[in-house]
Amino acid sequence: MKIRSFLTTVASVALAAGSLVSNAKDIVHDAEHYVLLAQYKDKWAAQDKTLDQKLVELEKKHGKRPNIIHIMWDDTPVGEIGIPAIQKVRGWETPNMNQLAADGINFMRMYTEPSCTPSRAAVMTGRHAKRNGMYNVGFPYEYGGLAAEEVTIAEVLSEAGYATAFYGKSHLGDVESSYLNNQGFDEALWTPYNQVPSLYVPRAQIGALSAAVMFPEMFGEDPYDIDNGWRPDGYVWALEGKKGGPVREVGTPPNHDDYVALEDEFWKRASEFVRKNAKSDKPFFVALWPQLTSFMGFPDRVTAGGGLLQEALARMDVRVGKLIKELEALEIDDNTLVILMADNGPMTHNGPPGMVETLYTGGKGDYTEGGVRVPAIAYWPGVIEPGQIIGDIIHETDLFTTFATLGGATKHIPRDRIIDGVNQTALLLEGDTQSRRDYVHIYTGPVLAATVKGRYKKHWTGAKPGLSGPEFYDLYSDPREASGQLLPMFPAKSMFNIMKVRHLLMKEKYPDKGQNRDFPLKGIENARPETIEASKGRVLSGDAPFDPKDVIQNLPEWDNVDRGWGLSE
Amino acid sequence: MKIRSFLTTVASVALAAGSLVSNAKDIVHDAEHYVLLAQYKDKWAAQDKTLDQKLVELEKKHGKRPNIIHIMWDDTPVGEIGIPAIQKVRGWETPNMNQLAADGINFMRMYTEPSCTPSRAAVMTGRHAKRNGMYNVGFPYEYGGLAAEEVTIAEVLSEAGYATAFYGKSHLGDVESSYLNNQGFDEALWTPYNQVPSLYVPRAQIGALSAAVMFPEMFGEDPYDIDNGWRPDGYVWALEGKKGGPVREVGTPPNHDDYVALEDEFWKRASEFVRKNAKSDKPFFVALWPQLTSFMGFPDRVTAGGGLLQEALARMDVRVGKLIKELEALEIDDNTLVILMADNGPMTHNGPPGMVETLYTGGKGDYTEGGVRVPAIAYWPGVIEPGQIIGDIIHETDLFTTFATLGGATKHIPRDRIIDGVNQTALLLEGDTQSRRDYVHIYTGPVLAATVKGRYKKHWTGAKPGLSGPEFYDLYSDPREASGQLLPMFPAKSMFNIMKVRHLLMKEKYPDKGQNRDFPLKGIENARPETIEASKGRVLSGDAPFDPKDVIQNLPEWDNVDRGWGLSE
Repeated sequence: MKIRSFLTTVASVALAAGSLVSNAKDIVHDAEHYVLLAQYKDKWAAQDKTLDQKLVELEKKHGKRPNIIHIMWDDTPVGEIGIPAIQKVRGWETPNMNQLAADGINFMRMYTEPSCTPSRAAVMTGRHAKRNGMYNVGFPYEYGGLAAEEVTIAEVLSEAGYATAFYGKSHLGDVESSYLNNQGFDEALWTPYNQVPSLYVPRAQIGALSAAVMFPEMFGEDPYDIDNGWRPDGYVWALEGKKGGPVREVGTPPNHDDYVALEDEFWKRASEFVRKNAKSDKPFFVALWPQLTSFMGFPDRVTAGGGLLQEALARMDVRVGKLIKELEALEIDDNTLVILMADNGPMTHNGPPGMVETLYTGGKGDYTEGGVRVPAIAYWPGVIEPGQIIGDIIHETDLFTTFATLGGATKHIPRDRIIDGVNQTALLLEGDTQSRRDYVHIYTGPVLAATVKGRYKKHWTGAKPGLSGPEFYDLYSDPREASGQLLPMFPAKSMFNIMKVRHLLMKEKYPDKGQNRDFPLKGIENARPETIEASKGRVLSGDAPFDPKDVIQNLPEWDNVDRGWGLSE
Repeated sequence: MKIRSFLTTVASVALAAGSLVSNAKDIVHDAEHYVLLAQYKDKWAAQDKTLDQKLVELEKKHGKRPNIIHIMWDDTPVGEIGIPAIQKVRGWETPNMNQLAADGINFMRMYTEPSCTPSRAAVMTGRHAKRNGMYNVGFPYEYGGLAAEEVTIAEVLSEAGYATAFYGKSHLGDVESSYLNNQGFDEALWTPYNQVPSLYVPRAQIGALSAAVMFPEMFGEDPYDIDNGWRPDGYVWALEGKKGGPVREVGTPPNHDDYVALEDEFWKRASEFVRKNAKSDKPFFVALWPQLTSFMGFPDRVTAGGGLLQEALARMDVRVGKLIKELEALEIDDNTLVILMADNGPMTHNGPPGMVETLYTGGKGDYTEGGVRVPAIAYWPGVIEPGQIIGDIIHETDLFTTFATLGGATKHIPRDRIIDGVNQTALLLEGDTQSRRDYVHIYTGPVLAATVKGRYKKHWTGAKPGLSGPEFYDLYSDPREASGQLLPMFPAKSMFNIMKVRHLLMKEKYPDKGQNRDFPLKGIENARPETIEASKGRVLSGDAPFDPKDVIQNLPEWDNVDRGWGLSE
């Protein structure tokens, strides 16, 4: 097999430090974790003791484990939030979020998956999207989504007694298993897709420079347009449901007003949920993932720059400010960890104007730093030291494990699969240089495209077999990955190869799951006829010389393979 | 002529607001200034009255006009100094300078000329390098330099009673008129070239990956190497002199130690000069323009990143910290304006590793923002409000006029030429949005390559005649000038054309001077034989069928015309 053939070229490599997994009850991490563990086992164990003690004291003080609010939004390059000087040159500002960064941690190396669906699935499960099959970006209809077997942070925290809620853009698929009330949330209101459907409305005709071309009501009569079922016109704006209860559609496409109204509703419900649980014995966990904007933009402008995303974030900033004030008024701010972050880099490829590179090359979909490094802030007054700019690597999957640790819920993390997220409680509570991670494997789609180790980076795609090419980068000296170095970086060649082999070997024991595919939008209580039609497939079995179900199951693994990126396996 | 033919295409354009130049004794600015003046005449006049009053009060309090220290170094992109978060991702820090930015003004739109010699000439004269012929980057031998007729800020402030000194890299040429003690400085120690000669030493052989190839002592015998006078081996490391006195060479090339020792000497003399003048009746002006580093780099590393420039700036930061402490100890910090800035963008083209883009596209030599926007800090405790991040446009030439204003020396600014620099005292003392400039004409070499107006930018080079091409940029939304906009920016077409015509029409009345060329390194008291040889020319008149003097005078106006950039005139 391919992994083995790769192995023969690096014949002497063994799965280093594997014996450290001494206890079958330990969480299983990726190989690289054990390399660090072998070196820091004692230090980390001692540190964990101190941290556990601190968490116990906090629990004593507040009568419960900390509340967690996780706010994640779209497509923002690292540096655009939390650094007022950069906002100055872009003609906008987010004073509230900048203040939270100044009063807490401003992470400079928060890594994510390079696009929405993978990133959201990764933070939800603590696992790279490649492991759980969520490496495709979903569009109506996606015919796929988060599998029932995946264990989300909501499920883990629920088991430990948390009240849990989701409001916003999930983008985790349109199959029934992906519905968020089926994935551990007590209550949820979510959009299953991204913001692109906001262009699938008659009003999109107004923007003549960016004509939307999907729906026939946007055009004059076309006598050649004969397949009435080809377009996904049963898509939904949003769904809502409670744990164990039915799911209902919210708003009716293509009514654009219904879509725009959702954003208010997300924040309103989040506020209600926080108020409702503030004085309860149960701590709460809220995933508040704003949809930010319709792709149609706002009718007025609140920023000088006027970029679509900046306009949305400036508005979101006001909401964030209000939410923090609310936590203060409820006197729970010092028992609430707030994480604010983007889900991936800017949509520089075919995105709206104003979505641009800031410090790094590339954006959404790219394995260069611009695709996978995002602004991220941690705020927890009295617990997290203010004024920290943190240079450590942290990966979004680490939040899964860290939230579980803070919530006293690690025993509910499954032990039968690799959890990429490592526990970063030390980084949150003790600060700079305390990360338990110095590596990131960067997948784009199903492809392992690059690996980061500290300041160094190896591009796997584009590498030449035989003589090593200049695919080695020093991210301090060449942050834009503009000129790979060959000669000075030769010592890194084997080290990166060994890292990759370790990573792939772990997959032999814990294989990736494939994509989870099914007909979309099933089981919606108030489904419209066109939605019901879609949930059954357009062609019934027996009506065609193929099985429609088979078609769905065999949708391409990755719809961008023709982009010219080399495949690594 | 060409300007006229351009004019006929925009036939209705007149030199707007020219009548505002009512008084022959007024400083002559570029056309665009008068467009703003027409709109803000009353406001600015009232504001100037308040500011003058404030300066008079300060003079009363301290018994003299403010001291000015202007620190300018090489090749740093805007954002790399003064924004700790950006330094975090590059693996280095300048805590002292960052603190000065936090305690004063952090300029986000300080524009310069796009390379060393032009930038240094511009700040020295308050004029674009194209006007004074200094648009070439000098190398040994340059056979050119700042003309005697140019009036420097040192001359202007000297006239008003300032003690003046220059220490560091001048890069203003090697002809006698350019010697800094001939250009208004009471005392000066300067390197006439850039740092590249530091590679013209035998020790450069150590760096086998970047072999220096200019000097025969670096190679074995070459029987084909027959012209003993071809190489500029009479170049000097540094010169020193006092106003009205002789000039002497300091250090002997290719002794690399002599070159490295200069940096200490620059800072030592600056410190001595400050101490000497601290309690004097005369205010002082110091231009302290560090050479930072030899291109050979430092034998040890003080930063994690380790880039050549970052290593140098981290070291310089310590010196800056000491200098500030010294001002405090002398109790003159509250009467001393300190400006810190780079001279142009990073040397991304053929430069050393670590010289990279940060927020903007391009670097040294480029007319994109990356070439011409630099980090800049203004610090003046008690006078400049701390904590300011300023989004206004300011151009390095403005410092000339502003320093003169602060020094009560504007009457010594010549009235027979265009002074590009406008008075930015209001911006320094009253802060954000108080700039008197919303425009920059960007020259690279002798070419007017782009024009900035507020957030908008027009690239002149590369523009197509006839139908307008997509050369219009919105710097808020597209800071990297990645995708010019045609349709949404159409209204800007005529506006930019009018701006250009105004600018060119002013040149008819006040023409650019050509380059000032002569044999190099004349009149050095302790000149070595090879330097004396160079100062006479390699071939004497009469020994050849051409006049060597003629050759020097006709050196190409711009040695990069084959770079493929279009010429605008």
